[in-house]
Order: sequence, then structure tokens, then C-alpha cells
Amino acid sequence: MNPFFYAVPCASIVALVFAALFYRQMKKEDEGTPTMKQIAQFVREGAMAYLKQQYKVVIIVFIILAIFFSILAYGFGVQNPWVPFAFLTGGFFSGLAGYIGMRTATFASGRTANAARRSLNAGLKVAFRSGAVMGLTVVGLGLFDIALWFLLLNSFYDASVSQNLVVITTTMLTFGMGASTQALFARVGGGIYTKAADVGADIVGKVESDLPEDDPRNPATIADNVGDNVGDVAGMGADLYESYCGSILSTMALGASAFFAAGPEMQMKAILAPMLIAAVGVLLSVLSIFTVRTKEGAGMGELLKSMSFGTNLAAILSGVATFGILALVFGTEDPHWWQFSLSVVIGLLSGVIIGKSTEYYTSHSYKPTQKLAESAATGPATVIISGVGLGMLSTAIPVFTIACAITLAYLSAIGFDIHDMTSSENLSLGLYGVAIAAVGMLSTLGITLATDAYGPIADNAGGNAQMSELEPQVRERTDVLDALGNTTAATGKGFAIGSAALTALALLASYIEEIKIAVGHTAGAMINGVEVAKASILDVLEEFDVTLMNPAVLAGVFIGSMMAFLFCGLTMNAVGRAAQKMVVEVRRQFKEIKGILTGEGTPDYKRCVEISTKAAQKEMLVPSVIAIIVPILTGILLGVAGSMGLLIGGLGAGFVLAIFMANSGGAWDNAKKYVEEGHLGGKNSDAHHATVVGDTVGDPFKDTSGPSLNILIKLMSMISIVMAGLTVAFHIL
Amino acid sequence: MNPFFYAVPCASIVALVFAALFYRQMKKEDEGTPTMKQIAQFVREGAMAYLKQQYKVVIIVFIILAIFFSILAYGFGVQNPWVPFAFLTGGFFSGLAGYIGMRTATFASGRTANAARRSLNAGLKVAFRSGAVMGLTVVGLGLFDIALWFLLLNSFYDASVSQNLVVITTTMLTFGMGASTQALFARVGGGIYTKAADVGADIVGKVESDLPEDDPRNPATIADNVGDNVGDVAGMGADLYESYCGSILSTMALGASAFFAAGPEMQMKAILAPMLIAAVGVLLSVLSIFTVRTKEGAGMGELLKSMSFGTNLAAILSGVATFGILALVFGTEDPHWWQFSLSVVIGLLSGVIIGKSTEYYTSHSYKPTQKLAESAATGPATVIISGVGLGMLSTAIPVFTIACAITLAYLSAIGFDIHDMTSSENLSLGLYGVAIAAVGMLSTLGITLATDAYGPIADNAGGNAQMSELEPQVRERTDVLDALGNTTAATGKGFAIGSAALTALALLASYIEEIKIAVGHTAGAMINGVEVAKASILDVLEEFDVTLMNPAVLAGVFIGSMMAFLFCGLTMNAVGRAAQKMVVEVRRQFKEIKGILTGEGTPDYKRCVEISTKAAQKEMLVPSVIAIIVPILTGILLGVAGSMGLLIGGLGAGFVLAIFMANSGGAWDNAKKYVEEGHLGGKNSDAHHATVVGDTVGDPFKDTSGPSLNILIKLMSMISIVMAGLTVAFHIL
Repeated sequence: MNPFFYAVPCASIVALVFAALFYRQMKKEDEGTPTMKQIAQFVREGAMAYLKQQYKVVIIVFIILAIFFSILAYGFGVQNPWVPFAFLTGGFFSGLAGYIGMRTATFASGRTANAARRSLNAGLKVAFRSGAVMGLTVVGLGLFDIALWFLLLNSFYDASVSQNLVVITTTMLTFGMGASTQALFARVGGGIYTKAADVGADIVGKVESDLPEDDPRNPATIADNVGDNVGDVAGMGADLYESYCGSILSTMALGASAFFAAGPEMQMKAILAPMLIAAVGVLLSVLSIFTVRTKEGAGMGELLKSMSFGTNLAAILSGVATFGILALVFGTEDPHWWQFSLSVVIGLLSGVIIGKSTEYYTSHSYKPTQKLAESAATGPATVIISGVGLGMLSTAIPVFTIACAITLAYLSAIGFDIHDMTSSENLSLGLYGVAIAAVGMLSTLGITLATDAYGPIADNAGGNAQMSELEPQVRERTDVLDALGNTTAATGKGFAIGSAALTALALLASYIEEIKIAVGHTAGAMINGVEVAKASILDVLEEFDVTLMNPAVLAGVFIGSMMAFLFCGLTMNAVGRAAQKMVVEVRRQFKEIKGILTGEGTPDYKRCVEISTKAAQKEMLVPSVIAIIVPILTGILLGVAGSMGLLIGGLGAGFVLAIFMANSGGAWDNAKKYVEEGHLGGKNSDAHHATVVGDTVGDPFKDTSGPSLNILIKLMSMISIVMAGLTVAFHIL
Repeated sequence: MNPFFYAVPCASIVALVFAALFYRQMKKEDEGTPTMKQIAQFVREGAMAYLKQQYKVVIIVFIILAIFFSILAYGFGVQNPWVPFAFLTGGFFSGLAGYIGMRTATFASGRTANAARRSLNAGLKVAFRSGAVMGLTVVGLGLFDIALWFLLLNSFYDASVSQNLVVITTTMLTFGMGASTQALFARVGGGIYTKAADVGADIVGKVESDLPEDDPRNPATIADNVGDNVGDVAGMGADLYESYCGSILSTMALGASAFFAAGPEMQMKAILAPMLIAAVGVLLSVLSIFTVRTKEGAGMGELLKSMSFGTNLAAILSGVATFGILALVFGTEDPHWWQFSLSVVIGLLSGVIIGKSTEYYTSHSYKPTQKLAESAATGPATVIISGVGLGMLSTAIPVFTIACAITLAYLSAIGFDIHDMTSSENLSLGLYGVAIAAVGMLSTLGITLATDAYGPIADNAGGNAQMSELEPQVRERTDVLDALGNTTAATGKGFAIGSAALTALALLASYIEEIKIAVGHTAGAMINGVEVAKASILDVLEEFDVTLMNPAVLAGVFIGSMMAFLFCGLTMNAVGRAAQKMVVEVRRQFKEIKGILTGEGTPDYKRCVEISTKAAQKEMLVPSVIAIIVPILTGILLGVAGSMGLLIGGLGAGFVLAIFMANSGGAWDNAKKYVEEGHLGGKNSDAHHATVVGDTVGDPFKDTSGPSLNILIKLMSMISIVMAGLTVAFHIL
């Protein structure tokens, strides 16, 4: 084993140790008044109960899939024997990352509220360090799983044989599929849970009864706060675990194939490169987390500066460090060191640009959201029309950025050899460049995820403060923290969505590698007249008639584009249905429980928690199962060409749709906040009511359907990869 | 010239003669009371004034583009010298079709209202025959333009030379670009006009002041009725003119290339086939129009039956006739006759299925829209969430149908030779099959467009009845006619959107042919080592590195998907902004003009008409110009590979987005009608107000952004085709 490799498990352990450290620090904080403790406990119990229920359903799905994979592997021999196990570990670690993050968040939010009674800075520290637990757990567990499987497979296969390195890395991709499957359920289930509660609470509470957010008289309040934890924390944790591992794993697989002809030594370098960039990124993230601190009495501006300083520092150091790492790995006499480094920097930069664009379109410090708020003067209909318009327009910059990133990362990796861009050799190298750009984007996930996870913690702290009826200034402080979280989260979202697009492309390339392996199961098989091991990407495309004008490709593109919409439609409807149930229940309680609105009667919080839990359980199944089955059926009916069309169509439409939904939702949320800050008539004005409608519609846009699309895109690729053997053996067209 | 050809100009003349006949019949009807006459005149004047303004802007754009094309053709020699002229005639005829249709509609709606005073049947007859004027004008002018250019070019080029037939047919495609450009402006401008007025009128009238639809006290009422004419009639006319010609022209071009090796005689057969199918379709449409009549005292059910009978009869006869026509053209010893005929039938069938699916998702006789209406019990937010969900779900069946249609029409055309699906020869044949399926879908446009155009006429008749304060039963009768129009229009929409997808694919294939011609401008040029004239589609793809994994293709796919969203975002925002201006104006009038709400003061209708006109003029430019420029820039920056990615991405995402927007909008509209019929509390209940918000949001979805996407998809292809020479000469990647 190359000695550099050991940096990977070390970085993993460092991350997990610091996560444990921050967790213990947080737990030492005081929990506050008995009411605060009680409310925190309500929320914690609800969240844990939900997660338990969800994992029960997911375990059944995992068992069924694992049996299916075992039959394919051991019965038909069309799959690698490691697949069922790798699949299960990926799912396990992804679920674990979500669980730890959520456990931390549910302990942290009450403590954050209590710390905010002392000062803003104290609140920030508790919330941010708790967010860091999640960030470091995700990257720590991710690297741990990667290192473990790499070591394990290296002990079974002789790594000095080129073909074995291809097998090792493509096998490892399977645990990416496990992580994706788990992430999809977590995002969809959590997303439905949280938005059913949120939308239900808002409609009856804010629109019909003029109660403020998180008012203890609203029976759906606890469910709403539970939702933040299961959706925004556990869901996001599983999601980013998947993104992180997916980007590293697909780069490794492409590295093994791009340098196949150059022999195992070069292959190993290309395999190590993404792992090492990630490992160093983890260390830099830990370092940068410590720089986030402000003086006592700091204002919102300083807080934001301090956080941005941390994430920017990590990104810049990571960019610089990449040049060093790749110079060490490849040696400076090999131009690959700077070519790939440049690809990484392009990835990092485009993440920043997408983040800035998200901020511009969704923050009420800028024109678009302010204009959206102004459209509230003419009622809810114009708010919705303008918000949809805004979200659709906001797709231009991110898509343009990603299109440039793909092209430039590719060109850089092939040394800007534009006259022979798509030769067999350049194609592999270039796609490796695109993949490693995604790794660059996510290398500082430890800290960017900390700033992301910190948001819901601050949000819940506000809920706790409100429900515990603490001094108003505590709520004001947590609101500042929450607003800050929205801004920093924009950057995080930019990295998540940008990396998803690049990773999905890398997975598409990995799919082609997997097809080669699938064909190779037959002794003496050829691809396009070439020996399988030596066949290039172009050979595979030619052998399986993957040309743009093949009707199977075109049909696949249509179906793929539709999948993104179908999936969103199912999740939107799920939220709509569940929210309606919630509204009916809250209205019932308002009517039947005496004195509930005067604060004398106690609402039945539990009933609302149950409604959300049941609805999420029931509604998450259909969209998730469709996401798994359609790629399998497409492979069988339309073959490799159809599958590739499906993945490309899904990627194109899914990426744009995801940005549209996330940004429309974000802008509606902040337009409402803008009005609440006193603009256009302020709270309880007609304009405010109109923006509340917008915000309510935006909830499932930005927190259920939109973020799930990121996973859908990659899950469909992962499934196609794992099912490549089935497709090759049984396809019709 | 093959004698069969003369059936084409003959059919064109038959269509135009019957159009003139129906027009004169309609004009002979009585216009009704003086008030009715006056209102009809207001609407007519407003509509004509707008169209004049719009054509002024469009003429400038056309002149600029024609100069640009002339420079490319005569200055740089990278374009065919006929291009500027063909481009201009396409635009002219498309505009003319819209103008005639609108002129007819504005004369017909008052007369329809007056006829409805006598009986429902009388109203139906006037409205439907007037719709038929539009239907027959569109197909008549379309075939006229096609026949004219075909004759003209045949007199300049010797049609017994294979290459000349390729040049003739690809040159003719250029007038498709003219038609598309004109159609885009008409759809976007008209769509913004109509929805600015409609949304503005609804928000202040229905939501704020509880006035009924088309109440004469509402100052925006006339503008709203003008809008129906400029958007739903003139816009749709130009749009379908473009679809009709586009499908025939692209099939001709593919026919010339698919049978290149077989020689000019076979080529001519393949070129004639789509023209003849269209010509016979025109005659069958005229015949079927005469079958639409009911007995006096017929109910809604019988009316619907009668209309459906007409369209179904035309479709069935057209399917049967196709077998006959192609047997005549190709001879029964050549299996192509039944292979292509089957493709046509597949096209026809899938149009019907998409239409039925549209009806299912948007009619309130079925579950989805009823459930949408029920979600109004919990307020406007859940109406929007459920409507978005419904629209997204509703994309599944149409996309699945089109995916099947593409695959099956292709397979049928190659005689189900699935083991060699993508050989050079089969690829050309199969794509010709896909193209001719689109021709089949649109062959009965004469009658389907009649049922489509009849809708806005009935709608305006209702407006006239309301404003002229006729007996309530007149309005009831026009409402029945209007509702019937919504149902029959669903089928029309299915054909329009389905054919757009198939035609866009055919255009993609034509683009490849155009690239060959562009390369051929250099003497002795080769493509992929093959003489240009003999190069296959696969050779072109290989020469220009058009492989799915080329980063230029991938970047193109992203940009194409984004274009669909960007375009919708721009048009949505345009409607939002214009509607806000309208609301402000109406509110001002309600405040400042005394007695306006009691009916004593007269509203200033003209001011509202002006606002819509100006807004539409101003706002239509940016989206339209972007739609023209992006494909040109993509070609130059990313080359042929990037352009093809752009077109495929735009097609996939655009098609699905168009269905989503059309169906969400349609369902919101009908959910409101469902409540107005007395369900869930009926008119003026909270549920009704919630559905009015949905309907208002749905207006730009279904009448501005959604239908424009159909054109956008094809316009981008057309531009790429016309700019192929520029791309080949100056591309960077």
C-alpha cells in the first residue's frame, strides 16, 4: 500500500475525535429552565421516535434490495459478489451520520437558547460547534468507510494488477448506492415530515389565527420543530454523506480506468489523489472551525464575517494545498499535477459562484427578493407568479457556471488539447478532471456543513425560546443567528448542488466502466472488436449504439427529464395531503379544546407529531421506489443506450429544476421576512398575508422536492451502475 | 414534376375556398343589439391596434435577421442564397394566418352571442364554423407556401439530381424558421397581453371587489377580451402554422437524405409522402367539419359527441387514407408503404392518448381536478402546492407515450430490424419514420384547430353577452359552449405538444443534414473520411465528436435545459409585472371615477388596453431575442456537439415543462369552475377565493409560458439549422 494512503484513516480519526470533543463541550452547557428542558425533551423524543420508524421501513427496503443483489451476484453471476455487503455498509454509515447529527442538534438547540440568554456570541458558539459535530461526523464516517473498504479489497485483490484496481474501485461505488438509497429515504421522509408540520402550522396559525411562529398555543408547533431536526438535520446529513462519498468514489473509479494503460502505479496515484484531497480538506476544516469566534458584543455583520472567514479560509487553503498534494503524488515532472489541481480549483470556484448567485436571488438584501416582496401589494397570486419567475430566472447563472466548470475542468485535465478533445485517452482523462473538480468542491465539507447544520439548530433554539416564553431579546438573538444561518447556508447549498451535477457526470462515466466489467464476465468477450480490458469509453459507446440519434437514447432523455418532474410532483402532493390533515387536526383542536387560544388549555402536541410521522412513513415509499425501479426497467427495455439517455435527461432537467425550486422557496421565505421586518406594511398587513402564502408554497419547494432531486439524480446513476450486469445480460433493445 | 404533387396546391385551394365560404356565412349573421355591436367593435379595435403594434416590432426584427442572413449568404458564403427570402415568406404567412384568424374571431364572437339568444345550437354553429375559418386558413396557407417554394426551387434546381433534392428541401426548412420566429413573438406577446389583462382583471375584480367575470364595471374587461383574441387566437394561429409547416418540411428534408443512395426517384416519393398525407388530411378535415351539427335542443353531452365525432372521424379516415396514399406513392411491392403508414398511425394514436391524458388531468369531471378543488378547503397555499403537484405528475403519461411513439415509429420505419437498429441506413429511415409520425398527428389540423379556435370565440361571446347585459340564459349557453371548448381543446393541445416533440427530433436530424451541406461548401471536403454527399448521420456525429461523453455535449444539455426554465421565468415575470400595473390602474379607477361600481360611472377601458399593449410590446423582446441568440452563441462557442446537446436538453426539459405548466394551469382553471358550479361552498366562499388565486397563477402557466415552450423548442432547432454554416465555419470547440 502506498504510504500516503494512511493519511486517509488518520484524517478520518481526527475528524471523529474533534466531533466527539465538540459534542462533549456542547453537552456540558446548561439546559436552562425546567420548561426549556421539557420542550427540548418533547422535540427530542418526537425526532427519535420518527427516526426509529423511518429506519424500520428503510431496513426492510435494504434487506429486499440486498437479497435481490445476492441473487444477481450468486444466482445469475451478473454482479460482483461484494455488492450486497458494500451496499449495506453504505446505507448504515449514511444513516449513522444522520442519526448522530440529529441527536446532537436535539441536545444543542435548547442549550443554544439558554446560551443566547447570556449573549449572542455564546449562542453562536454553542450552535456553530454543534453544527461542526455534524460536519465532522459526516466527513469522518465517509473517509472511514472509504478507507476500510479500500484496505479490505486490497487484501483480497492484488493491487499490482491493473484490472484489479478497476474492480476494487468500481466495487466500492456500490456502497455509494447504499448511501444514496438511505439518503433518498431520509430526505424524502424527513422533507415530507417537516413540511407537512410547517405548512399545517403556518396555515392555521399564521394565516387563520394570527399567531406568531412557534407559538405554544399552536398544536403543530412541536411537530414543526421536530421536523426541522428530522428533515433539515438528519436528512441533510445523510444527503451530504452520500454526496461526499459519491464524489470521491467515482473519481477513484475513473482514475483506475483513465490510467489503465499506464499501469498500476499511475492508477494508484490517480486513485489516491481524491482521497488525499479530501483528507487534507478535513484537517483544514477542523483548523478553520477554530477561527470562527467573535468578540463579546459583536453585531450581525461581524458574526457573518467571522463565519465567512472560516469557510473562505478553508476553501483557499484547500485550493493551495491541492497543488502541493498532487505535486507530491504525481511528481512535478508529470504535468498532471498542475492540470488536475487546476480542475480542482475550477470546481471550488464554481461552488463559490453558485453559492453567491443563490445568495443574490434569495436574500432580501438584494433586488430580486425585495421586488418579490413588493409584488405582495397585489395579493398572493402575484407573489406566486413572481416567485416562480424569480426561481426560473435564477437557474441561468448556476447552469452557466456548471457548463463552464465541466468544459474547463475537462480541458485543464487534458492540458487544453482542444484539437483532439475526444480521443479515447483524452476522454478518460478529461472526465477524471470533471470528477476531481467535484471532490474539490466538497473537500471543505467539514466546515461548510457546519455552517449549514448550524441553521436549523438556531431555528429550533428560537422555537424553544418562544415556547418557553423567555425574554423577547432571547428570541431576537436567535433570530439573528437564524438569519445568519440562512445566508451561510446559501454557500453550502451552492457546493451541494454544484457537486451533485459534477458527480453525476462522473457517475455516468463510471457507468461505462461498469458496463465493460459486466461484458468482461463472459470469457473472451470483446467490445467493439477490442479486448474488454483495453476497450475505451468510445468503444463501449459504439458497441452499444450510444449515439445521440438512437431512438432509445432519445426516449431515455425524455423519460429522464420526466422523472425529475414526476418525483417532485409526488413529493409536492405528499406534502399537500399531509398538510391538509394537519390543518384539519389543528382546526379541530382550536374548536374542541377549551381555552387553547387564551393559553389556558393545553394543545395535544402528540397528535400532530403522530400525523406527520404517519404521513411521512406512508408517502415516502412511492417516490423512492419509483426512483429505484425506473432505471432498472429502462436498462432492461431500452438497453445501455436508453439508460444513458435516462441519466443525461434526468441530470439536465433535474439539476435545473432543483435550483429553480430551491431558489423560489428561499426567496419566498425571505420576502416574508422582509415584510415582517416592517417593510410594505409589516406584520399582519395584507402584504404580509400574501407573502405568508408564498412562504407556505415555498416550503415543500425548498425543503422537500428541491433537495431530494440532488439525490435522485445520483441515485439513478448509482442504480444503473450496480445493475449494469443485469442490463448487459437481459436488455431488449 | 410527379403528378401526385398537384394534389397539394389543390388541397390548399380547397381549404382556402371553404375558409372564405365559412367567413362569408359568419359575416351574414346578425350582430345583435347596438350595445353588442359597440362592445364587439371596442374589442375588435383593441385587438387590431395591438396586432399592428406587434407586427411593427416583429418587422424590425425580421429585417435585421434578413440582413444578417444576407451577409452570411452573400458576404461570407456560409449560407444558402435563398435563405433571406424563404425566411421572410415564412414569417409573412404565419403572421397572415394569425391575422385572418383573429379578424374572423373578433367578428364572430358578437354574432355567436346573438345566435345563442336563439338557441345553443345556433351559437355552436356560428362559433364552430368561425373556428373552422382559422383551421382551414392555417392549413391552406401552409400548404400554399410549401407548394409555392417547392415549385419555385424545382424550376431552379434539376430535381433529377439527388443532391439537388437535398438542397431544395433543406432550403425550404428556412421558411420554417421564419414561421417559428413570427410564432414566438405572437405567442409571447399575445400571451403576455392576454394574461396581464386577465390576471389584473381577476385580482381586482373577483378577489377584491367580488365582481363576476366580464362585468362591464371592471375597467380591465375589454382588455381581457382583446387578450383572448390576440393571445388565444392570433398567437395560436401563428403557432400551429409553424408546427404544421415544420413537421412537413422536416420530413421532406429527411426523406431526401434517407433515400439519397436510392436515387432521385425514391427521394421524390419520400418527399411527396408527407405533403400528400397533409393534403388528404385537409380534404378529410373539410368533410368532417360538415358532420359537426346537432339537432335543435341538444344538450351538452350531444354537442360534445358531435364535435368528438368530427375530430375522431377525421383522424380515423386520415389513418386509413395514409395506407392508401403511401401504397400509391411507394407501390405495394416496396414494404416502405406499410412501414411508414404504421409510423403515421402511431403518431395519430399517441396524439389521441396525450389528449385524453390532458383531459383526465385538467377536466373537473375527473378525480385529479376534483381533489385539487378540495384542497381549497385549507386555503390558497394548498391549492398552489396541489396544483403544482398535479401538473408535475401529469407529465408521466404524455412523456411515456412520446417515448413509445419515438421508439415504435422508428422501429416500424426500419421494419422492426432491432438487431441492427442504428446502422447508417436504418438511422436515416427510422428518423424519417419519427418525422412522418408528426405529420400524421397534424394531418387533421384543419378540424382539430377548428375545435381549438372555437373556444376563445365562445369565451368572448360570453364576455359580450355579459357586458351587453343580455338575458342570463344567453350567458349560460355561451358558458356551455366555452366549457365544451375547454374539453375539445385538450385534444388539440395533445396533438400540438406531441407533434412539437416529434418535429423537434426530426429537426435535430435535419440539423445533421444541414451540417453536411455546410461542410460541402468547401470543394473536395470530406466528413469522417467519406465524400460529403455520401456521408451518413453517423459519419457527421463522428466527425464533429458528437458523443454523449463530450463535455461540449454535456454543457449543451445543461444550457438547453436551462433555456426552457429561463424562458418561462422571463415570461412569467413579464406577466407578473404587467398584471401589477393593471391592478394599480383598476384600483385607481375604482377610487377616482365616481359611481363606477354602481354602474353609473363609465370605466376608462382604453387606458387598460393601452397598459396591456405597451407591456406586451416591451416584455416580449428580451425572451424572444434570447431564444434567437443563445443557439447562435452555443454553435460558435461549443461547436456542433454543443449545439446538439443544447437542442436535446432543451427538447427534454422543455417538453416536460410545457406539459407541466399547461396542465397545472388547466386544472386550476377548472377547479375554480368546479367550485363555481356549487361544490365546496360555491361562489364567493373561502374555497372559491382560494381557487381564484390558483386560477390566476395558472393563467400565465397555461396561456403564456407553457405554449411558448412548444415554439421555443423548435425555434432553437430552426436557428441552429439556418446557422449551421456559421457554426461549421467559425466554431471554437
